[in-house]
Formats: sequence, structure tokens, C-alpha cells
Amino acid sequence: MSGKNAFYAQSGGVTAVINASACGVIETARQHKDRIGTVYAGRNGILGALAEELVDTNFESASDIAGLKYTPAGAFGSCRFKLTDPQKDKTQFERLIEVFKAHDIGYFFYNGGGDSADTCFKVSQLSQVMGYPITAVHVPKTVDNDLPITDNCPGFGSVAKYIATSTLEASLDVRSMCKTSTRVFILEVMGRHAGWIAAAGGLAADYDIPVVILFPEVPFDENKFLARIEDNVKKFGYCSVVVSEGCRYPNGKFISEQGARKDAFGHVSLGGAAVILAEIVRAQLKHPLHWAVADYMQRSARHLASATDVKQAYELGCAAVNLALEGRNSVMPTIDRISNDPYQYKIGIADLKDVANVEKMMPKNFIADDGYGITEACRQYLRPLISGEDYPQFHNGLPVYVNMQNKLIAKKLPDFKI
Amino acid sequence: MSGKNAFYAQSGGVTAVINASACGVIETARQHKDRIGTVYAGRNGILGALAEELVDTNFESASDIAGLKYTPAGAFGSCRFKLTDPQKDKTQFERLIEVFKAHDIGYFFYNGGGDSADTCFKVSQLSQVMGYPITAVHVPKTVDNDLPITDNCPGFGSVAKYIATSTLEASLDVRSMCKTSTRVFILEVMGRHAGWIAAAGGLAADYDIPVVILFPEVPFDENKFLARIEDNVKKFGYCSVVVSEGCRYPNGKFISEQGARKDAFGHVSLGGAAVILAEIVRAQLKHPLHWAVADYMQRSARHLASATDVKQAYELGCAAVNLALEGRNSVMPTIDRISNDPYQYKIGIADLKDVANVEKMMPKNFIADDGYGITEACRQYLRPLISGEDYPQFHNGLPVYVNMQNKLIAKKLPDFKI
Repeated sequence: MSGKNAFYAQSGGVTAVINASACGVIETARQHKDRIGTVYAGRNGILGALAEELVDTNFESASDIAGLKYTPAGAFGSCRFKLTDPQKDKTQFERLIEVFKAHDIGYFFYNGGGDSADTCFKVSQLSQVMGYPITAVHVPKTVDNDLPITDNCPGFGSVAKYIATSTLEASLDVRSMCKTSTRVFILEVMGRHAGWIAAAGGLAADYDIPVVILFPEVPFDENKFLARIEDNVKKFGYCSVVVSEGCRYPNGKFISEQGARKDAFGHVSLGGAAVILAEIVRAQLKHPLHWAVADYMQRSARHLASATDVKQAYELGCAAVNLALEGRNSVMPTIDRISNDPYQYKIGIADLKDVANVEKMMPKNFIADDGYGITEACRQYLRPLISGEDYPQFHNGLPVYVNMQNKLIAKKLPDFKI
Repeated sequence: MSGKNAFYAQSGGVTAVINASACGVIETARQHKDRIGTVYAGRNGILGALAEELVDTNFESASDIAGLKYTPAGAFGSCRFKLTDPQKDKTQFERLIEVFKAHDIGYFFYNGGGDSADTCFKVSQLSQVMGYPITAVHVPKTVDNDLPITDNCPGFGSVAKYIATSTLEASLDVRSMCKTSTRVFILEVMGRHAGWIAAAGGLAADYDIPVVILFPEVPFDENKFLARIEDNVKKFGYCSVVVSEGCRYPNGKFISEQGARKDAFGHVSLGGAAVILAEIVRAQLKHPLHWAVADYMQRSARHLASATDVKQAYELGCAAVNLALEGRNSVMPTIDRISNDPYQYKIGIADLKDVANVEKMMPKNFIADDGYGITEACRQYLRPLISGEDYPQFHNGLPVYVNMQNKLIAKKLPDFKI
């Protein structure tokens, strides 16, 4: 007799390796058919549970599930959705229990970042608060790398590798052109609150590239910033800038909100931090410049994933299932670093109550004294996370990514208004 | 006794594979030491010749020269510089002859696009016009893929592979998010006049991705464009847009100039086509959206170079030297396609007078009837050009790219005011 069924879902912004975690969860569950029945994947995260849109992953072949390791983005669909506070409104939780009961679900795996950990935590309390027995384990994921306790978050290493590589490559381009053309290059990267991704751009400095980093953690000082660029242009002939989308003025206002320019329709301009910085640099320094915004390219770039990241994402998916099988509820497997070089780590455990809604900022000793670069401690932290390549297969010049069948099981319940 | 020395230089916007052509030129010249003396590389293109800033490539080791095959951007520096019209002002040409004489230069290899072909053509006329014997051969290079006669231009295949892959990857991301978040993704790519790079985004449609392409060749029709997006959002839940920086209104004005918004300093906004489109889509359709600007990342992304492109860039460098050794002046080696599948080509020859300042637009039969996609003929043209991977080596998670020593030889002439 097989055990309870499992629910797995992807939540929040997706990454190049979140599907590797899905692969770890599903493959490990399949190895324990005596104790875990079917893995149902939520269509679009927790919404799939609320709407009773459950993908029967038994229809996915072993080779397609293995292919998830090489496929970016969320194969089952993700969502940005926060459950209500159960103290105030239990409707959503009653619905979850209804759905879980209807499909005999006893395991809950939620794959996401800080907000999603909150969802997973709330679900993990169902046994205690509402008497429905469930084992809920969070699988960490976020390119922002801002979950506490774990050494790093799956998804981050690959973005960091992409941004470090792109900064290096684009800087070589600018270096070639600066005699008669572009002297300043600005790359905008993700990171609304924490500067982890921007920090990765600093690794290009290992190759004697002048890089100025603007972190969300360091208030933007226009004059100091411009002086720093000018110094680099004088010394190297050019300068690269990696700006976090979350870079702010001392008053807390994002630089991307600067001026709040309106377009012909009266709508506020969508121009991001790079656009604003480009205007400032051009106006004040008159240097020819180029700017780029990596946006979704950075977090979906499975073609340049970090092998370390892929491996850890997979292992944490496996670990989540093993924790559930040990009966551990309301926990999250973590990466515990043992040493930098050689890079060694082990899988640890965190209590979800300590994870949900907590953001981990860059430590002070990772940011250079002048606020525009990273320290050797930061380099030692980052290097192993971007190390190793793990290329997908290609066909006709494009990567081969798998598509799930995403076959939904028959609904047993009436519709639920979300 | 060795023959005349050679001058090689890189010109215009650099690419992921222009150094592979440099490698082909230098390695082939080294194989003919009896007929070609030293290869001097111009520091920053033709400026290096005018300023007598000549890099002695004999100081570069065989392994570093081989490493150029894997290194993006212009290893000797490039320039955007157009020689004067010799009919009106011979000063620059007299200087070139002085420098060539002083360093016994009899071969001239110029590695660039359309404008640069004009420079190479003018130099190739020195024998006839000014009595200085020189053999000038152009080595084609441009991500814009707009040189005539040749089937394609080195640099393009790698950008196309990058844009096709990035469009696919980012679209999978949007597909995952569209239930509760982003529904429209806009990627701005290079191509001021010709839509070759934007066309590459259309290859993602092979993977059932809804992609709307905005070519410079097709006048922008806002209502039709918005309707097309809306159709895709209804059918797929999301839509990706690949917009060429050169996309224009029917009156010829770039959409990036729309509104010519000014910032707080009174400067015209630098916002590109993606920013403007994002404003239009948000205002009219209200869909949550994200946008990215690939800028220099696309043309420097050696980590994702097309193996076909690298091979052709190298072969054309070799071919240029062989043509020079055959005494062919004022020519450019070309790629002549024999068949699509299997992909076969041979190296051909074009007269420089037919190449300089001529732009090759997308043929009409490559653009879908509705103006927003590519045809099967275009796919057959593009597929071989992006095929094959040719990864650089990595160390500590970053690609290993070579740096030239760039040792300048002693000047023999007085300074020249450029």
C-alpha cells in the first residue's frame, strides 16, 4: 500500500534551476512509492491547490522529469500570491484542506523565496491550527539570494554566473571601443532590496576590468559616483557600471523613480535605474555610453547555469522529500558551507518560522569601503557558487528544453472563487 | 628573405568572433614567413596606422593567438573613424603611405563592416591613385549581417544564437509567471537599419512561443501591433516581443525618439525602443510587463557563440591572407552558401567596390505576410548560422579570455594630428 500523495508547487519569480529542484522532489518521491503515492504539481503554484488544478506528474516520463534539470523557468507554472492571514480569514485554508482531503494529500512541498516560505509556513500549521495532518517542507529558491540561514539560495549562483560573465564580456567590448566611441557601459541587474546579484558583477574586476557597483545597501551619492567613473575613464579609458534595480537615494527613493517622468499619455515612465543613470552620466560627464537591462534574461539563462547551483537545487529537492519522510514538518533544507576552497558544504535544516518573511542583506564586510566594489571575502563567497558549467543539449542551434504534459486530474470539488 | 610586412586592424562595432578572424590572419601569415614579414596590428583600427601605433604581434605567443578564437571583442582595439575623401583631401592617405613605407608594409587587412569596407577600398586604391604598392583585403565582420554579396557576416551567427536562445529562455520565464504576473515581455535588440538580429528571435517560435517581431523594414503600426499582442495573450496567456532598435514609424522616425521626453536636466531621454513600447503596451493594454535591452551583451557573448560563426570568422581571416598572397587587391572573401540542409558553403570573392557602403536588408520573403514574424525560408537561412556550440574554457566560474600584450613598436615618424 502506498502512502499519502504529495503536492509540489513553484512560487514567486522563477529561475534557471527551480525545475532542477522539481526534478529532485519528483525523482526522490518516485523512489519511495511505498510511502508517497502520486506527486501532484500545482498549476501555477498555490493557486493550483486552491483551484484544484493538479497536474498528475505520473504522466511525465522519467526522461522528461530528468530533463527538468536542464530546463529553466517554472515547468508547472508559478504565481505571486500571498495567502490570507488565517487568524483573520480561514476560507483559503479550509479550501486547501478540502482539496488535500479530496486527493489524499499528506505532503506539501513549496518551492520559493521569502514570501513563499510564509505560504509554506502557514500550510505547515494546518495540523496544529485546523487539525489536518500534513507535512510541509519548503524548498528554497530565489535569485535574490536573500533567504536567511542557508548559505545561498538555488537560482542565485546561475544569475551570478550570468551577470559576472556578461559584465566581463560587455566590458571587453567597451574596452575595444573606448578610443573613439563608448566609454561608459551601464548594466542594470535584479535585486530590489539586497545587492547580491550586483555584487557578482564585481567578479569581472578579477580580469582588470574597472567596474563600479551600485548596491541597494549603499545610498546613492551622485557626485561621488560620477567622480568614481571619471577616475576610471582617466585611468582605463572606460568604465563599467553594474547597478542594482533597487539602488536608492539617501531618502529611500529608488533612483529609477527619479523625476517620475510622464509620457505622452500621462503615464509614469517605465525607465529603470540604467536609463536614469545613463541620463545623469551623459548630462554631467558627456561620455558616449551604452546601457543594458538584463531583466528576465539573467534569471532564465539556463544555457550558462552554474553547475554548483544546478547540483544544489537538485539536492535540496531530494532533501525536502527525505525530510518529509522523516516526518519533519515546517522546515526547509539549507546549504551549510563548510569551507570556501576547496568548496565543501552539507545539507542542513532550518525551521520555517525563522525563514518566512526574513531578508538577508549583504554583510557589511562584503562591500568595499568606498561602497562601489566587493571585498575578497565576498569573492571567496561567490566564486564556488558560480563554478562549473552544466550545459543543456542543443538542437539546430537552440537549447533543448522539456515541456511537461501538465495533465490535470479530474476535479472532485465545486469551483472556488480565489 | 621575408616579404613585406602586413597591417591588420579591427574596425567598427566589435563582435564575439572578430578575434577569431584576427587569429586566422595572424596564424596564416605566420605560416608564410617567407612571403609575409611581421603582422602589425593597428592600435584601435585605422587610427593605429595614422598615429603609427603598431602592435608587434610577434610578441604574442602561439597559444595566445590561438586563444583569440575564444575571446570576444577587439583584442587590438577598434575605432569608428571614416577616412576623408581622397579626391578632396589626401593628407590622411599621404600619412598612411608614410607609415607603410617606414615599416615596409605591403599588405593591408581590414576587419569590419560596410563603413570599414569603404576605408579598405580607399586604401586599396593607393597603388593606382598615389603610386604606393599595397595589397588590401577586407575581412568581413558585422553583427548587423548587412554586407552585400556574402551569404552572412561573421559576428551575426553568434548574436543570432544569443538572441534566439535568450528569447526562448525569457519566454519560458514569462509563460511561468503569466497567471498572476508578467504577461508581456519586450526584448530590444540591435539592428539600426536591417532586421536580421530581430529575425533571430523568431526562431523561438519553433518551440511554440508566441513572438511578435518588430523589424526596421516594417513601418510600426501601433494599433495592429497592440491587437497582435492581445491575440497572443488571449491564446497563450502571454506574449514576447523582439524589437529592433531601428523600428520606425511610417514617417521614418525611430520609435525610440517618440515624444523626445526630457529629463530634469532638460536632456532628451535616452530611453530606447523597448522603453517606449513598454509605455505604449502598459497604457493601452494594462498588462503587467517586463522589458530587457540586450545591448553590448548580445554581441560580446562569446560564451554562447555559434560554432559555425567562429569557424567562418576564422576561415575568412585565413582566406584574406591567401588572397593577398595571390596578389588579389581590393577584394573581400565571402561565404557562398551551397545548401541549407546539410549546410554547405564555400569561400568566394567579392570586389570591394561592390561592398563598400552597400547595405543588405532582409529580403521580403523572409518576413511573414503580417510583418510580425519570419518565414520558413528565413528559418532555413538562419538555422545553420546559429548551429553548433564552441564554448570557451572556464576558470573559477568565469570564461578564460586572452589579453594581448599589445607591445607597440618604436615610432619612426613625427606625430600626426588626426
